[in-house]
Amino acid sequence: MDKDVLARDVANVTKIPWNGRNVERVLSSLLITGDFWNVVSLSCEPLPAVAALLKLMAEEGMVAFSEYGIKLTQRGRDFIEKEGVSPWHLHTCPRCEGRTVVIDDELKDAFDRFLKIQIDRPEAIRDYDQGYVTPETTFARVALADSRGDLRGKNIIVLGDDDLVGIALGLTGLARRVVVLELDERLINFEREISSKYGLSIDVMAHDLRKPLPQEMLGNFDVFFCDPPETVEAFDAFVGRGIIALKGEGGSGYFGITHAESSFHKWRALEMKLLQRGLVITDIIHDFNVYMNWEYVQEMLAWDLAPVKQAPIQNWYKSAMVRVEMVERLEMPNEDLTDRDIYNDAESSTI
Amino acid sequence: MDKDVLARDVANVTKIPWNGRNVERVLSSLLITGDFWNVVSLSCEPLPAVAALLKLMAEEGMVAFSEYGIKLTQRGRDFIEKEGVSPWHLHTCPRCEGRTVVIDDELKDAFDRFLKIQIDRPEAIRDYDQGYVTPETTFARVALADSRGDLRGKNIIVLGDDDLVGIALGLTGLARRVVVLELDERLINFEREISSKYGLSIDVMAHDLRKPLPQEMLGNFDVFFCDPPETVEAFDAFVGRGIIALKGEGGSGYFGITHAESSFHKWRALEMKLLQRGLVITDIIHDFNVYMNWEYVQEMLAWDLAPVKQAPIQNWYKSAMVRVEMVERLEMPNEDLTDRDIYNDAESSTI
Repeated sequence: MDKDVLARDVANVTKIPWNGRNVERVLSSLLITGDFWNVVSLSCEPLPAVAALLKLMAEEGMVAFSEYGIKLTQRGRDFIEKEGVSPWHLHTCPRCEGRTVVIDDELKDAFDRFLKIQIDRPEAIRDYDQGYVTPETTFARVALADSRGDLRGKNIIVLGDDDLVGIALGLTGLARRVVVLELDERLINFEREISSKYGLSIDVMAHDLRKPLPQEMLGNFDVFFCDPPETVEAFDAFVGRGIIALKGEGGSGYFGITHAESSFHKWRALEMKLLQRGLVITDIIHDFNVYMNWEYVQEMLAWDLAPVKQAPIQNWYKSAMVRVEMVERLEMPNEDLTDRDIYNDAESSTI
Repeated sequence: MDKDVLARDVANVTKIPWNGRNVERVLSSLLITGDFWNVVSLSCEPLPAVAALLKLMAEEGMVAFSEYGIKLTQRGRDFIEKEGVSPWHLHTCPRCEGRTVVIDDELKDAFDRFLKIQIDRPEAIRDYDQGYVTPETTFARVALADSRGDLRGKNIIVLGDDDLVGIALGLTGLARRVVVLELDERLINFEREISSKYGLSIDVMAHDLRKPLPQEMLGNFDVFFCDPPETVEAFDAFVGRGIIALKGEGGSGYFGITHAESSFHKWRALEMKLLQRGLVITDIIHDFNVYMNWEYVQEMLAWDLAPVKQAPIQNWYKSAMVRVEMVERLEMPNEDLTDRDIYNDAESSTI
């Protein structure tokens, strides 16, 4: 028994491509925490693969599950030592939490208003695969966009907005125009109310992103934000919506990619799609986006997969922030995706 | 006259693909600084293109050059206002300077020793296209690698090491093995002396990276570091050396890509090469690597191109830190590149 054998077994069970290095990252995490959600978060590996590995390790007597969480047995510790695996030693910046940018004095007033406003936001619901980020994350996106010249005087489109990026952008008053496309009526009403109450210049429009983008949105924006489902096809289609909304070369886009629902194999396929669509990847910032824990966690596939049925305490679901820029304008379809299952593949678990 | 016309003219003169957004980034920089090197640094645009744009703007009476630097004329200011361009507003984290990681208590002793050791390093010379990063940058690389599980117990190869990454890794005492391949005898001797004096376990070997990698290096390492020349062909070949040194899937690599010598068009081509070689791009951290100013700046092409002949005061040459990981092992050539000109293309200027 070694890391590579375990990786192969996990790959067989889950159909997620894995190697010894993937196993190693889970082992490094087990040396630090016995909380399943934290293991997933620290390991940066797909949740179904982590769950499958833990099940295999339990069968081998390397870990034991209890109401208190996951416990490494002596046999497990011996195995990890034999494999030469160390616990994680993170040197993440304590000031920006690894985001590279901070909400500084220039943005603080707008952020303070955002903090109060977002208290009354609609809760994330399962119907739309929702799950929103912390207020700090939303505003760090604003700070990042401003640092890249993607805010002041720009036309910005937000494709799906349970993170309230539209409101955050509106509160700065720096963009030329902010358009939000959203399907959830609760969010549409919330954003419209806030917009009217605080005099923000944002247009919130009802739209199902599985449907083609409205004609008047095409080629009209400098910047897009979206947070697409992470099946390769859905990702491609949703980022495709962002791309066709851009005016042309020099336009940019922001979105997250997780580890919890996407292996590095899938990351590579997603990156290839981006390049093939005429984009360059300019930034990939690890664990930039931190999501609030779902109210509906016990309804998710992730809960069924979890070897220990404890609700997460810390925010465990994170994603890397990706910025792209268009360097070559290519013809892109504006197709209808209503009939496709865009949310599920072997690596997904938060649906 | 507008941004797009200027971009087209620059592209015609320099053969560097440019669009209005590229021009905009230079204009945003000119609103902040009159120092040519700082304009290049802030704009994140290729130096030859920035120089060509400034020349065109001077012909249009938008900027004037003097011994004090570049001055925007009223005409230039009017143009920038008409184009709706704002000055940069950076929100870079003051603690980590945007690097995501910090040299914390765990690394501080090793870093303090490194700071003293590197004082006597050989100066960068033009023969090998050298130019080294600040000591803080070198150690931030160590912090990043440790945070990604790429340090403890790992076999690490450093392909060319004017940045003294090998010594920094050695000082931590955490890697299993560190091998440095270097061509410059001064650096080889320096690293060997330091290694012997401080009892570091690093092997420094004389090797010209244009030649095929020695047989015993193939498939033997977990992690590689390199800082390749940025022509597409050279980049591919040098990163290729790193790839064939890796044991296999799960192996990782670190290197920098600049804006000063690579347009986003070239970035996209480089990224495509990485994916095609079986790698996934896991991190791109903007301006992570900060280079010390060259002693030989007045001999560089960049000096000839500079519209104002003032030596740089601040460190202006930076690069993004890129981390890749192998997800698919592919056959790679180990070819001889001795006869090729690997250092020059339309976008290079520090040779």
